[in-house]
Amino acid sequence: MVTSSVTTLSLTELAKHTRQAARQLAVLSTEERNQALDAIARSLESSSAEILAANEADCQAAESEGIAKPLYARLKLGESKLKAAIAGVRDVAKLHDPVGSVQIHRELDDGLVLKRVTCPLGVLGIIFEARPEALIQITSLAIKSGNGVILKGGKEAIRSCQSLVKVIQESLRSTAVNPDAVQLLTTREEIRELLALDEYVDLIIPRGSNSFVRYVQDNTRIPVLGHADGICHLYIDKDAQMEQAIAVAVDSKTQYPAACNAIETLLVHQEIAPQFLPKLVEALPNVELRGDEAAREIIDIQPATEEDWSTEYSDLILAVKVVDSVDRAIAHINTYGSKHTDAIVTESAAIAQTFLNRVDAAGVYHNCSTRFADGFRYGFGAEVGISTQQMPPRGPVGLEGLITYKYQVTGKGHIAATYSGANAKPFTHKEL
Amino acid sequence: MVTSSVTTLSLTELAKHTRQAARQLAVLSTEERNQALDAIARSLESSSAEILAANEADCQAAESEGIAKPLYARLKLGESKLKAAIAGVRDVAKLHDPVGSVQIHRELDDGLVLKRVTCPLGVLGIIFEARPEALIQITSLAIKSGNGVILKGGKEAIRSCQSLVKVIQESLRSTAVNPDAVQLLTTREEIRELLALDEYVDLIIPRGSNSFVRYVQDNTRIPVLGHADGICHLYIDKDAQMEQAIAVAVDSKTQYPAACNAIETLLVHQEIAPQFLPKLVEALPNVELRGDEAAREIIDIQPATEEDWSTEYSDLILAVKVVDSVDRAIAHINTYGSKHTDAIVTESAAIAQTFLNRVDAAGVYHNCSTRFADGFRYGFGAEVGISTQQMPPRGPVGLEGLITYKYQVTGKGHIAATYSGANAKPFTHKEL
Repeated sequence: MVTSSVTTLSLTELAKHTRQAARQLAVLSTEERNQALDAIARSLESSSAEILAANEADCQAAESEGIAKPLYARLKLGESKLKAAIAGVRDVAKLHDPVGSVQIHRELDDGLVLKRVTCPLGVLGIIFEARPEALIQITSLAIKSGNGVILKGGKEAIRSCQSLVKVIQESLRSTAVNPDAVQLLTTREEIRELLALDEYVDLIIPRGSNSFVRYVQDNTRIPVLGHADGICHLYIDKDAQMEQAIAVAVDSKTQYPAACNAIETLLVHQEIAPQFLPKLVEALPNVELRGDEAAREIIDIQPATEEDWSTEYSDLILAVKVVDSVDRAIAHINTYGSKHTDAIVTESAAIAQTFLNRVDAAGVYHNCSTRFADGFRYGFGAEVGISTQQMPPRGPVGLEGLITYKYQVTGKGHIAATYSGANAKPFTHKEL
Repeated sequence: MVTSSVTTLSLTELAKHTRQAARQLAVLSTEERNQALDAIARSLESSSAEILAANEADCQAAESEGIAKPLYARLKLGESKLKAAIAGVRDVAKLHDPVGSVQIHRELDDGLVLKRVTCPLGVLGIIFEARPEALIQITSLAIKSGNGVILKGGKEAIRSCQSLVKVIQESLRSTAVNPDAVQLLTTREEIRELLALDEYVDLIIPRGSNSFVRYVQDNTRIPVLGHADGICHLYIDKDAQMEQAIAVAVDSKTQYPAACNAIETLLVHQEIAPQFLPKLVEALPNVELRGDEAAREIIDIQPATEEDWSTEYSDLILAVKVVDSVDRAIAHINTYGSKHTDAIVTESAAIAQTFLNRVDAAGVYHNCSTRFADGFRYGFGAEVGISTQQMPPRGPVGLEGLITYKYQVTGKGHIAATYSGANAKPFTHKEL
């Protein structure tokens, strides 16, 4: 490697090794992958002191640089968080194996059989925040699904990440999983390089700010799983039950305002607005409301500008708009929404059905909080991310987002010529 | 529209109209969509003379410009091709409705129910060759799956396409489908504009040359369904049955050499090569073989260069390489292949399984021709394309490639706070 671009070469080499290790990992049995997860859990336990010390060093460095409190809280691992993360590894081992499911099993003709079988994607590139336990969770999901993984954590967590990956790689040496399947990047520059490695990386999962996700989407040919925006809506229909409407609004906005599935805009039917809006003000004392003209005729709040309708506040701010029909509500959502999760409160089954059918989003909800949009809550066991793309996987994505499938056809010397031309033999297409 | 970029505006406007019409189409019943297909079939029948005259004009213009014979054959519609295409519309109407399937139905808690339901993608952008009946097939698949479609056919077929879209749009006026759901672009410049309309177009399906598909992939943020290359392999193992190996090789190479699922490279185990290769030469008198050194020691053929291993000839040319193990064959395929379809001929079940497991491709075949990689042959009824991407949909894609899904959650005022914190209520996660 006597060239000027040593870094590029070495990242490419690293990715090649990951690819190779992932190809071995892909064909291991369920048992072998679960054994590797068990080995990781045990090593993390026995190396706890070392890991916590590395994290302590990260925390001290971050403190001396004046890190913001919420970021510090996420960076800080501590014994109980580490224990929970290790328990999480064992939980992932218990999940149903997503690899090797037969999705189609069909006779094409006598002795010619088609199977569609799930298999790992290959190599995942995951860029995550400065939260050390995220590395543990991501790695266990990758191994469970038979994928190699190239990890890049937030820079504040660099010592923690290095310590964790060292422990994980060492623990894998005693298992069927090649330790090269798990790799760590440590510099921000490597992210751009990673995004160019479409030959070796099959899926990028960026976690982080909207602008970062958009940067990733715009700078790679590798498929990206994630969402740039979470502009969720709640529509209070004229036939809403008032207490339910208030409870759902409060939960959707305030249960965790920074979450992507919290609402940013509340739409309310003009017939119910005069009763509903004053109660909303009462129920959300800490929330800054910004309204359109019709809302401001009812309650005394700041005006909302055009920009408000497409802003993800991720904060205790809520835009409010009065509409004259469910159709207007749907049109607003389909114009300004980010296809994440949108909800209606109504006692009318017909109006609810119209809303669920016509709103174009990964999640469409009736009489419940948008905050349920989450892989754990959906019963997926683990979540690798939430996708707002139109194509599947869409919405909260569990392990199934980390697998693909292949078509296996087995014959006895069957050739296509038999099924072509004037005397073409017909296919049987019989499900097996 | 008194601006300098009238064209951009008008294409954007057109796409907006398609989007709107598609939103209406998306919520129509199976019956309403099938009735629209029936109306299209009847109108195409009654307007046959007009359509064939437009096609005749295309053919004359193309002839006067000295079009190549195979292209002329594809451009020429004629009565029997048109009849077959109309029958195809009625066949599509008979296919199982891909919209509205419930993929997940789960109780999250008492009265809180999750459903995952399939729904149309939205608007498709399909760029296809100068083959008029392709327009008929694509349009019927789009309407069947509840999607709007923006079509751009090869320029030689412009009059045919205009005539067909006029007839289709007129026929839709008497149905529940808004005619705006089907639109035609007529200039090549519009393709670049179309690729920029990620706000209005949800999936691009480019049909055409490898370089064109790659151009599309590199110039849009819209998901692309298709394949740039079809570099398929056939590996003849040492335990292959000789006659079967020859028959599969001949079919895979010559049954339709221009198809993407025809083989470009044949790998053969060194133990069987001395018997197999001379027979191969005999069986493929019209095929130019290019071999590595080991192959050329056995048969007198041209040398293969490094470039040959990654070339899609789409012609009666075949690269031949001798390998010393199934592992080497797999390594070669995973290095040079395009993840389309790769086959092995062997009597060894163990070696076949190794090959099927380890080759990373959409299709992995044992003892049959690669030419079976096709949606019709797989029993999908219709094919919208073949994808060589790693993520699903992969391989031959039927109607399922034109749909997505949404998560519907219905509650009775359920809020997330109930399931959080110290006294969190557990979810039931019970399948319904």
